[in-house]
Amino acid sequence: MKTFSISTLLFFLLFSSVGISQNAVQDSIMMKKLYTTALTDGKAYDWLDYLSNEIGGRLSGSFEAENAVKYTEAELNELGLDKVWLQPVMVPKWTRGFKEYAYIESLTGEKTVTDICALGGSVATPSLGIKAEVVEVKGLDELAALGKEKLAGKIVFYNRPMQADLIQTFEAYGGCVDQRYSGAAEAAKYGALGVIVRSMNLRMDDFPHTGAMSYGDTPVSERIPAAAISTNGADYLSSLLKLQPNLLFYFKQNCKTFDDVQSYNVIGEITGSTNPNEYMVVGGHLDSWDLADGAHDDGAGCVQSMEVLRLFKKVGYKPNHTIRVVLFMNEENGLRGGNKYAEEAKRKGETHRFALESDAGGFTPRGFSFDSNEINFSKAKTWEPLFKPYLIHYFEKGHGGADIGPLKDNIDVLAGLRPDSQRYFDYHHAANDTFDAVNKRELELGAATMASLVYLFDKYGTN
Amino acid sequence: MKTFSISTLLFFLLFSSVGISQNAVQDSIMMKKLYTTALTDGKAYDWLDYLSNEIGGRLSGSFEAENAVKYTEAELNELGLDKVWLQPVMVPKWTRGFKEYAYIESLTGEKTVTDICALGGSVATPSLGIKAEVVEVKGLDELAALGKEKLAGKIVFYNRPMQADLIQTFEAYGGCVDQRYSGAAEAAKYGALGVIVRSMNLRMDDFPHTGAMSYGDTPVSERIPAAAISTNGADYLSSLLKLQPNLLFYFKQNCKTFDDVQSYNVIGEITGSTNPNEYMVVGGHLDSWDLADGAHDDGAGCVQSMEVLRLFKKVGYKPNHTIRVVLFMNEENGLRGGNKYAEEAKRKGETHRFALESDAGGFTPRGFSFDSNEINFSKAKTWEPLFKPYLIHYFEKGHGGADIGPLKDNIDVLAGLRPDSQRYFDYHHAANDTFDAVNKRELELGAATMASLVYLFDKYGTN
Repeated sequence: MKTFSISTLLFFLLFSSVGISQNAVQDSIMMKKLYTTALTDGKAYDWLDYLSNEIGGRLSGSFEAENAVKYTEAELNELGLDKVWLQPVMVPKWTRGFKEYAYIESLTGEKTVTDICALGGSVATPSLGIKAEVVEVKGLDELAALGKEKLAGKIVFYNRPMQADLIQTFEAYGGCVDQRYSGAAEAAKYGALGVIVRSMNLRMDDFPHTGAMSYGDTPVSERIPAAAISTNGADYLSSLLKLQPNLLFYFKQNCKTFDDVQSYNVIGEITGSTNPNEYMVVGGHLDSWDLADGAHDDGAGCVQSMEVLRLFKKVGYKPNHTIRVVLFMNEENGLRGGNKYAEEAKRKGETHRFALESDAGGFTPRGFSFDSNEINFSKAKTWEPLFKPYLIHYFEKGHGGADIGPLKDNIDVLAGLRPDSQRYFDYHHAANDTFDAVNKRELELGAATMASLVYLFDKYGTN
Repeated sequence: MKTFSISTLLFFLLFSSVGISQNAVQDSIMMKKLYTTALTDGKAYDWLDYLSNEIGGRLSGSFEAENAVKYTEAELNELGLDKVWLQPVMVPKWTRGFKEYAYIESLTGEKTVTDICALGGSVATPSLGIKAEVVEVKGLDELAALGKEKLAGKIVFYNRPMQADLIQTFEAYGGCVDQRYSGAAEAAKYGALGVIVRSMNLRMDDFPHTGAMSYGDTPVSERIPAAAISTNGADYLSSLLKLQPNLLFYFKQNCKTFDDVQSYNVIGEITGSTNPNEYMVVGGHLDSWDLADGAHDDGAGCVQSMEVLRLFKKVGYKPNHTIRVVLFMNEENGLRGGNKYAEEAKRKGETHRFALESDAGGFTPRGFSFDSNEINFSKAKTWEPLFKPYLIHYFEKGHGGADIGPLKDNIDVLAGLRPDSQRYFDYHHAANDTFDAVNKRELELGAATMASLVYLFDKYGTN
């Protein structure tokens, strides 16, 4: 009983502390409408079906990415928004080329084929491939101790796994991704011929996971190829290395970087009724890696963001601020779309109040992370009770999102949708990030959760 | 800032209110051990692999169910528990027989085959099957108005869908399952020849979902066969009925009920150090439907429950009370195991303090529902802050679990693990309830969450 009465007290304390207790009922009703509409008359899942199954992987500069620009522009136009347009942005164009090929060669010449995929941005191997001995390390910091003597002419195999006992899988990802991002640049300093990186995946399976890498300031002539190997493949290679430290690894990949090409952010907006020159953005990124359909990363975030504006129209909510959906191009390997959007906003002197990104998969939503001052964060926390019926409970400080990040100096609140993260890295950047891995209800709940937060910040404003 | 300080105040208020603030650090450390061990050195997933892929569907009275009894008994024996035994219980034996067959016949004689499955406990059709016109209804309450005149000699098609805008899918299930459970008994009163029931599934797909049905007090000679049709099949049939209300539906099924057979609950325990004659139970049900492997329902709950005791041994926690794992037989079509366990507990005068069931799938755990008095519920609520790092937030009053339900009059606290429920009915009682639908981390998090609650109730006792 005591717990209940304290909770109830807390509820009223918090509501009254920002003076909105009289609005709580009205907000509950609006949120119920948003959730019900999303779950019974939603469009996000159909859009995702099209993006995944009719268009497919949408790597920046690809035919599919341009197709996705056209499709989403057309769909936004169907919604009867006040304005829909394309924002030009030059993006990098990297292609995988013919499928990679790799095998492990034992000391007796036996060859075992293993699946790899080039990391995004990697150079190709020489046309005959690379065959060399392998040095396994658990991280970048082991290279210096090994030195040129042990690394020159070798393939460096980065095999630090994601830490399984971290509850939030993005933390585990953050603890490993340096191997993928900087592994080649670091290994090149010691004369390595190439690098193989354990996939950023908590599950044991056979999918290699790609993702962005950078050569930093490594001169072009010294750049070495980098590829990912699946978690099963990494464990297998590691176990073989214990038996035969001098085994050979062969790999060949055919990727290529072209000149930058023209692409676009896709933008639509509902003009604000009272504050038309103040902007609130909801978005995801339209590009994806090329190995699958990018259903979770980030088709889900795009269709959820589109759905937010559609839900507002559907339930007849007329926002105070101008609400924009932005489908950013090139999050995966350049962030050009996010940077361009922020540049243009600054150049035009647009006042941005709030931005919410969905780029953590289309799984059951759990809440939000906020990158804002204390006042806005506290304000968001007062809305927790409104979200409780929808099992939305996570309101914490944290990262908003990569694409909205460049707005940071010119905005009150950046926020990120936080879906359940347990399955995310099973699919992330791999060939199984396909439509069937997304659950319709989970996707729709995410869209309604986003719409509810946008509604609340629109109604009560930011500080 | 205000929000934070109130939360912090609340935290201390709650902790101090039950006098355990000095223990909070110790509890945090223990819970961290339980979670880390489950995630990095767990056994639940391997057990589930065996139950699903080596044994398979475990319907009461089947060879597979007996196999599962032997396997889990052997595995519990491996854990070095203080006692492991089988508790005999007679269970019903119903078999599906040859696969069902059904088609829709248009007025011009065109036949469209559609997948169905007999409901558990249904009688067979006559050996040549049943062919009749179809009367579609949205629920049991429509039958009286239609009356014998319109229903006699027909097949009744129950087509009320699960309500998509309910956030908790079990509520949507509860709102529809009367069609499956009592549909045949009710339709028989009006002379119907058989019933076809829309699957209890929120997703549109091609899987028919079985589940228990009852004839109530319908005399044996008047019992009519009942089958489920997939959600896609139901929509298809319904749309055809709009075009041709007099189309015919044919179905044939070959199920049979045998005499009851001997089976067992599988029980293991760690003897309590200070209260050995007071029992705390953690369990799931070992039987499953026959169409798939029962990975989520309820292989997951069984292996999680086994894992609780294994985790205690592994981290060196010596419980005060005697902690029992009970793998109940026959939850799906009889609840004989749950009833037997409670009867025996009563007969022996065993004092049961607490029971926790996991029977809602192996998905990401969100929290617990509690069936207890206010004091025990309030006590559990004080532990919410301990669970927050694990994103466990749901502490509400509600149902414990079917198998532990019969203990109700003789126990302080019944509790149910509440995993995320969005995907559950995609798999429930259908051919896709297989191992690959279970995520290893989600399963393990559930086990650790259960172990943590058992630990806390064991340490602080019930009231």
